[in-house]
Amino acid sequence: MCRWLAYTGSPILLEKALYSPANSLIDQSLHSKLGAEATNGDGFGVGWYDDAATPGVFRSIEPAWNDQNLRELSAHITSGHFFAHIRAAIGSAVQQTNCHPFRHGHWLFMHNGFLADFARVKRQLALAVDESLYSEISGQADTELLFYLALTLGLEDDPPDAVARAIGLVEQVGETKGVKYPFQGTIATTDGERMWAFRYSTEGRSRSLFFTGSVPVLRKLYPDLPVLDEVSDESRLVVSEPIGNLPGAWHEVPESSYGVVGDGDNQLRSFKVKPPAVSVAVGA
Amino acid sequence: MCRWLAYTGSPILLEKALYSPANSLIDQSLHSKLGAEATNGDGFGVGWYDDAATPGVFRSIEPAWNDQNLRELSAHITSGHFFAHIRAAIGSAVQQTNCHPFRHGHWLFMHNGFLADFARVKRQLALAVDESLYSEISGQADTELLFYLALTLGLEDDPPDAVARAIGLVEQVGETKGVKYPFQGTIATTDGERMWAFRYSTEGRSRSLFFTGSVPVLRKLYPDLPVLDEVSDESRLVVSEPIGNLPGAWHEVPESSYGVVGDGDNQLRSFKVKPPAVSVAVGA
Amino acid sequence: MCRWLAYTGSPILLEKALYSPANSLIDQSLHSKLGAEATNGDGFGVGWYDDAATPGVFRSIEPAWNDQNLRELSAHITSGHFFAHIRAAIGSAVQQTNCHPFRHGHWLFMHNGFLADFARVKRQLALAVDESLYSEISGQADTELLFYLALTLGLEDDPPDAVARAIGLVEQVGETKGVKYPFQGTIATTDGERMWAFRYSTEGRSRSLFFTGSVPVLRKLYPDLPVLDEVSDESRLVVSEPIGNLPGAWHEVPESSYGVVGDGDNQLRSFKVKPPAVSVAVGA
Amino acid sequence: MCRWLAYTGSPILLEKALYSPANSLIDQSLHSKLGAEATNGDGFGVGWYDDAATPGVFRSIEPAWNDQNLRELSAHITSGHFFAHIRAAIGSAVQQTNCHPFRHGHWLFMHNGFLADFARVKRQLALAVDESLYSEISGQADTELLFYLALTLGLEDDPPDAVARAIGLVEQVGETKGVKYPFQGTIATTDGERMWAFRYSTEGRSRSLFFTGSVPVLRKLYPDLPVLDEVSDESRLVVSEPIGNLPGAWHEVPESSYGVVGDGDNQLRSFKVKPPAVSVAVGA
Repeated sequence: MCRWLAYTGSPILLEKALYSPANSLIDQSLHSKLGAEATNGDGFGVGWYDDAATPGVFRSIEPAWNDQNLRELSAHITSGHFFAHIRAAIGSAVQQTNCHPFRHGHWLFMHNGFLADFARVKRQLALAVDESLYSEISGQADTELLFYLALTLGLEDDPPDAVARAIGLVEQVGETKGVKYPFQGTIATTDGERMWAFRYSTEGRSRSLFFTGSVPVLRKLYPDLPVLDEVSDESRLVVSEPIGNLPGAWHEVPESSYGVVGDGDNQLRSFKVKPPAVSVAVGA
Repeated sequence: MCRWLAYTGSPILLEKALYSPANSLIDQSLHSKLGAEATNGDGFGVGWYDDAATPGVFRSIEPAWNDQNLRELSAHITSGHFFAHIRAAIGSAVQQTNCHPFRHGHWLFMHNGFLADFARVKRQLALAVDESLYSEISGQADTELLFYLALTLGLEDDPPDAVARAIGLVEQVGETKGVKYPFQGTIATTDGERMWAFRYSTEGRSRSLFFTGSVPVLRKLYPDLPVLDEVSDESRLVVSEPIGNLPGAWHEVPESSYGVVGDGDNQLRSFKVKPPAVSVAVGA
Repeated sequence: MCRWLAYTGSPILLEKALYSPANSLIDQSLHSKLGAEATNGDGFGVGWYDDAATPGVFRSIEPAWNDQNLRELSAHITSGHFFAHIRAAIGSAVQQTNCHPFRHGHWLFMHNGFLADFARVKRQLALAVDESLYSEISGQADTELLFYLALTLGLEDDPPDAVARAIGLVEQVGETKGVKYPFQGTIATTDGERMWAFRYSTEGRSRSLFFTGSVPVLRKLYPDLPVLDEVSDESRLVVSEPIGNLPGAWHEVPESSYGVVGDGDNQLRSFKVKPPAVSVAVGA
Repeated sequence: MCRWLAYTGSPILLEKALYSPANSLIDQSLHSKLGAEATNGDGFGVGWYDDAATPGVFRSIEPAWNDQNLRELSAHITSGHFFAHIRAAIGSAVQQTNCHPFRHGHWLFMHNGFLADFARVKRQLALAVDESLYSEISGQADTELLFYLALTLGLEDDPPDAVARAIGLVEQVGETKGVKYPFQGTIATTDGERMWAFRYSTEGRSRSLFFTGSVPVLRKLYPDLPVLDEVSDESRLVVSEPIGNLPGAWHEVPESSYGVVGDGDNQLRSFKVKPPAVSVAVGA
């Protein structure tokens, strides 16, 4: 099981989110808890936005807790919008091209979960990727393929619709291949302005997803957390699991829902899978 | 441009072929010449046969000349049939899953060359891989895909025919995509008993391919090469480029030809590409 | 905390010890249990003896459970005498030169534990390494330094005496630097014929150390373990922690003791630290 | 032989110096020329200054031309003061801790050259490192040791004096050990404000060292180089070898000289080795 976090708000040093002391708002996910959970040692990645045309992405196959370069970069890169992901490989190789977040243009995408029986559905799904995008795929991870399906289905125009259709396709192909519960997981995607976070599984028992409440409320709850004085009121953190020991700080995203944060937007909505509306030669 | 060598004969320590002193028969390819040719620093691999059911494969993304583990293994692994490859990446990522040799069951496959404009033909070619094999593909290298096409087209039954059809398919798809010279390179493949080495390019200006002459003749030419006393008379080395400074030792495989060595077999034949005899929805 | 295993007996494939199924005699240490214990993800190493003049050593900074090359080698290397170690770094960098086992000539050495406050004692200890050995040190791990101290103090002639003196020196230097409990851990060393395993800590609360009982007795206890039919009666496994769920199979080495196994030898003795008998300019 | 570059001037994206097109002022060193020179494939490092208390350092053991993370960071990190180094290992292991630049506090240090017969002089030199600094040494490279000697001898107070004494010590110890020409190379060091670049060798045949002339003059010479419009008049590049095809752009630092640039300072002086003024028990 992977873990991830997504931050949007006032620009902060990445290390504030990734390495802060134990009682900080945004802490242990990539540090202490990693240290206690071996299954997140199969590489990691961070993606961040700044003034450049495309977001930066740094990925490594070393466990995050070992990576000296990650510490260096986190202490020198400031961003108001970033993703971080620590990977627990299930099936595909431990290599940089399989590490999240994945990038296309100015979009990032990451996932905690899996496409069930990936070996059985992989070829059909690969066929459904738009030809103009196909050659950009550089690894073999299920999540990278899901990202390219979502791009094929309009991620850049309407993220919730495209993700609903991409998962719809995964379920449709899975069904024809006899896969019981084809999709599981939480997904985050962003264009650098807003981010969308989804919680869904075919089975209806989805992996967890949390977001922080309003910063002014958090400041009252935790007046001694220095990071809260640094960030603007509307800053938000979205995570696969709560981090830190901060009762009251985290709100759970309900089953089959998605949230939007950033750029003045801030919503929580129900999520329903849609038919892909793409013709895939399923029997091919 | 990659470099490779293939050995078949009496079992020897791998280091005899990979690290022997400068005047040895089988030397500098992975050592001194590597040291002079930066473009072969994008990873390497060795594959070897012993008593186990499948050949061993050791691959690394470090330059071969740096890899302490390669030195260790070469000094401890003895084999009468092995492949070694040093990679110069052109396009696909430097990662273990893109390093040669590739393996399926007890077959190995490696290549010095490329599928031209790979991004343009990749999707069509991936579609042509048999569904039962598709999910085994673990990297994104053009050669790995070529190997799976050859397997789809009968490599395990008739290697020259399958390679001819696989390249035929590459040329057919390339033509529909406007690729001028779709295939270039030398290929080696083996089942652990015999090995087949091909030299071909659409353009008719193929990368080089050499093999050693008879060991008894070599012993007369180079009486001071200790490795020649260790190997049986029918031992053979096939290489992408001559190694060592050994006039008379190397015979060039002619343009559009292939050779078979091992298991008592020893032939040189002309090579002609064949129609793939597989229906690929080229317009898809 | 690191984990290690040492095997001596009939030659077996390394994978029998490192990757066997859950109920095998020599199993989960480097596999399932690793999967549950993140702190052993900081690299690993194996060292093995065969016909070559020096043992082979394969080390990597990837977590052992990820390393495809380790699986390959384990399935192809057969040895009657080998060490395996999985590392949990405490302080020194995650790099191959800090991975155990360490090698000098035909000796191997590994350790689960630490030299307390290493930064404070390191320089004094480095000074005590014999000048002819000093330049061989290639990493910065406390264990590598301990190994070179033991070599300086006669490891190749009398391992128990040299280890006792090396730890004696660590304690002597530690004392002058105000280190409370300078040494902790279990050590294994071998010349390829016999292996010595030590359990000791200044504090008298040493990390655990276990060895397997006689193979004929094990066969009666576990008649369905196929590996037991492959190994000779006097084969032995020594481990930092029991592996598998095999009640009755493991005997604990008592506090402040050491054992010798291999080459017909098989003893358990008490271990006492000795004055180093080397002049170290402690005040320097 | 390593290569390095040092930049001081108006803040620019690192990629302007490391990856710019062929006719740019600061180009091919880490890109095209690397591609032609295998001996610079043993890792690399960059160190840069920004608002943080200490400079950032990113080091990797992959060849620079392969490293996707280096490309990413170079496209996102802006600095007005940075070092870049590509390594050709001679003797010490290819590991991050042996990659330049080395850092202590807010100082960086890098080197193209070697301490001759390092194995013979290493121990004596290590003894001379101040005890408070000794435990910070994290690799085994000759340059890292030289850096710690320079720090011991006052680098932070008077860089030219400390470097002169550190090399003086290397020569003194070398002489007692029978090393003919103990020191060779060019060195760059910086505190983030000014940088010092030295060219010296015991033999008097030192590796090359170049710096760019005044930017206004360069703009007249090369009116079409866009990077020249981005940088301030006093920006300077110091390199181990000229980069680009830019006649008139490069000035050679004479044999046995050093230069200072940055912070309004801009001088070229002669360099003479000094007695170390540190008591080293040379006979120890």
